[in-house]
Amino acid sequence: MSTSSHLYPMSSGDDQHSYIHNSSYQKVAISGAEEKTRRCILEKLDLQLSSDFSTFRIADFGCSTGPNTFHVVQSIIDTVKSRHFKENNEHSLVPLEFQVFFNDHTTNDFNTLFKTQPPSSEREYFSVGVPGSFYGRVLPRNSIHIGHTSYTTHWLSKAPEHVCDKKSIAWNKNYIQCNNLLEEVTKAYKVQFIEDMDAFLDARGEELVPGGLMTIIGECLPDGVSLYETWQGFVMDTIGDCLMDMAKSGITSEEKIDVFSLPVYFPQFSELKGEIERNGSFTIELMETTSHPLEGMALTNEFITSTFRAFLTTIIEKHFGDGVVDELFDRLAKKLYKHPIDFEMRKKLVVYYIVLKRK
Amino acid sequence: MSTSSHLYPMSSGDDQHSYIHNSSYQKVAISGAEEKTRRCILEKLDLQLSSDFSTFRIADFGCSTGPNTFHVVQSIIDTVKSRHFKENNEHSLVPLEFQVFFNDHTTNDFNTLFKTQPPSSEREYFSVGVPGSFYGRVLPRNSIHIGHTSYTTHWLSKAPEHVCDKKSIAWNKNYIQCNNLLEEVTKAYKVQFIEDMDAFLDARGEELVPGGLMTIIGECLPDGVSLYETWQGFVMDTIGDCLMDMAKSGITSEEKIDVFSLPVYFPQFSELKGEIERNGSFTIELMETTSHPLEGMALTNEFITSTFRAFLTTIIEKHFGDGVVDELFDRLAKKLYKHPIDFEMRKKLVVYYIVLKRK
Repeated sequence: MSTSSHLYPMSSGDDQHSYIHNSSYQKVAISGAEEKTRRCILEKLDLQLSSDFSTFRIADFGCSTGPNTFHVVQSIIDTVKSRHFKENNEHSLVPLEFQVFFNDHTTNDFNTLFKTQPPSSEREYFSVGVPGSFYGRVLPRNSIHIGHTSYTTHWLSKAPEHVCDKKSIAWNKNYIQCNNLLEEVTKAYKVQFIEDMDAFLDARGEELVPGGLMTIIGECLPDGVSLYETWQGFVMDTIGDCLMDMAKSGITSEEKIDVFSLPVYFPQFSELKGEIERNGSFTIELMETTSHPLEGMALTNEFITSTFRAFLTTIIEKHFGDGVVDELFDRLAKKLYKHPIDFEMRKKLVVYYIVLKRK
Repeated sequence: MSTSSHLYPMSSGDDQHSYIHNSSYQKVAISGAEEKTRRCILEKLDLQLSSDFSTFRIADFGCSTGPNTFHVVQSIIDTVKSRHFKENNEHSLVPLEFQVFFNDHTTNDFNTLFKTQPPSSEREYFSVGVPGSFYGRVLPRNSIHIGHTSYTTHWLSKAPEHVCDKKSIAWNKNYIQCNNLLEEVTKAYKVQFIEDMDAFLDARGEELVPGGLMTIIGECLPDGVSLYETWQGFVMDTIGDCLMDMAKSGITSEEKIDVFSLPVYFPQFSELKGEIERNGSFTIELMETTSHPLEGMALTNEFITSTFRAFLTTIIEKHFGDGVVDELFDRLAKKLYKHPIDFEMRKKLVVYYIVLKRK
C-alpha cells in the first residue's frame, strides 16, 4: 500500500484541534520571512507594472484553511501596490486589481477557508479557491505573477511503495517516517522527492509568467544531519513508539504499522538546491536558511503535541481508523513529560527561504 | 427584519433532499438551451480566437453544487474549441486552455462542488471556486470571455424591508412570497428587483471582456400574468397555507410568518427586458421565452414537493428553526394529494433565454 498525501489535508474546521488554531509554529516562520519577500518583490520582480497593467495574480499553493495564507497574501499585495505606485504617475493610474488563487487538495476544507477570510469590505483582492494537487498543473499557462508556498513541499505526493512492502529491502519496518536510519528507505524516499519536486517546479514554471517570482518557505535538514538526530524527528519517532505500544495493548495492530509510512521527506539543504538547479525552470534569486524563530526557546510539550496533532490527525485517522488519535496524542504527551526533549542537545531542522524567478 | 438571500444557498451535501439530487427541473430547461448557446457562441461571440489566444475564461454565476453547472460548462467549451479549430490553421495552434470560475455565495457548499466535479483526468479545464454574492463584483475587470447564469436571478439580494414590517402599507401579511395580489407589496419587490438587476449587470459588465457573451436562463411571468395565477405561485402559496396551519397547531407562530417573505421575485418578460436595456452595459443579442420542456406533462406531487424542498429548506430552517421542514413538506404533499394541481387550467411561468453581448 502506498500512502498518498492527496487525501490528507490539515485538520479541517475550526475546533481546538484544527489547523486554524494550531499553525502558529508555521506562522512565526512565515512572518519572519515577510521583510525578505518585500525586498525581493521590490528588487527582483521582473515585470513592468505600467499604468495599463490591470490585474495582478497571486497564488498560494497548499494554502490549507488559513489564517497564515491571508497574512502572506496581504503582505505581498501591500508591496506590489507600493511598487506600482512608485513606477507610475499617480494620476494616470487605472487602479490595480488583485486576484488571489488559494490552492489546495480537492479534499481541503475550502468552505472554512472562504468563511474565515477577511470580509470582502476589508479585502483588497478577488478571492478564488483552486482545488487540486500542486504536483500537477492547477492553473493556466502564464497566468500568475507571484506564487507562494509555505510548509507544503515536505508532503510528498505519496509514500514510496517499497517502504510499505514487507518483502522489499526498502521496507521501513516499524518506523513511520523516513528518519534516515535505514539507507534503502532514504534512497526510496529520495527518488520520490526528486520526482515530486520536478513535477512541482515544472507545473509552476508553466503557470508563472516569465519574470514572475515564486517564494518557497519550509524546513530542511542542514547538510550532513539526519532526521532522527533532530528534535522534530525524535517527536515523530516517539509517535511511532506510541503506536507500537498501542499495538501491544491491542488498540491497533503491528500489521497496520508495518504498512504505514508517512509521505513526508525533509531533504538536506544542498539536495534541495541541486534539484531546483537541475530542473532549470527558474533562476535562484535567493536561497538561505535560518533557525526557526522559536528555536531558541524550549517549546512546551502541550504546544508540540497540538502542533503535531493538527499536522497528522487526518492521515492517522484514515489509516488507523477513528478513535486512535486521542489516545495516541495522550500517550505522546505522557512520553514527552517523562522524557522531556533536550533542545540544547538535539539537532534541528532549519527554515529555508527561497525566491525563484521564472526564466 | 429583512430576509437576505446571501445566507441561503441551495440544500448542500448530496443526501436525498440535496439540490444535487433535486435539480432535474432546472436541468431540463438548461439542457433545452444548449443548442441555442452553441449557435450564439458560433455566431455572436465577438472575439478573435487567434492562434496566440492562450486562456479562455468562463464563469458560472450562482452555480450551486452541481451537477447542472458541469454540463453547461462542458457544452460551452466544446463549442469554443470547435470555433477555435475552425478559425486557425491546425498546425499553428498553441492548445487553448480553459479556466472555469464557479461562483456562488460564500456559504455555498464548495467542498461538495469540488468533490463531485468530473475528475481532473476527464476535465478539459482548470476549475476554481469564487465565493461571493454576484450582486457585487467577484472577478477582476475584463477577465471573463463567456459568463453564464441559470435559475439564479429570481433570488433577490434580500426581501424588501417594508414587506416584513407590520406597520408598513407594503406589509405582506400572511403571504410568504410576492404573489402579486397586494399592489404595494409588488411595488416594493419591484424596487428591489431593479436595484439588484442593475447591480448584477453593472458587475458583469465590468468583469466580461468587450465582445464577450453573457447567457441568462431563468423563469419569468408572461406579460399580464400574476404569480398567484401560475401553478408555481399556487404551490408557494400552499406552502404558506401549510405554515399557517402549523402556526395554528403551535408548531410555529403567526408572528414568525408575519415577518417572513421570500427574497424571490419573478418579473414579467417586458419588465426584465426593459431593465436590461435601461442598464445599458450589454446589447441584447437574443431574448426569447419558451414553455418549460416538462410543462406539457403533469408533474407528480412527489417531484414537485422534493424540488420545492431543495429550493427552500435552508431559508425555512434559518427563519423557522430546525424540525419544521419535514412536517412542512409532509403537509404540502398531503394538500397537493387532496387538491391536485390542474395543470391545464393554471397559468405558467415561462423559461426565458437571454444572450447579452458586452458593449
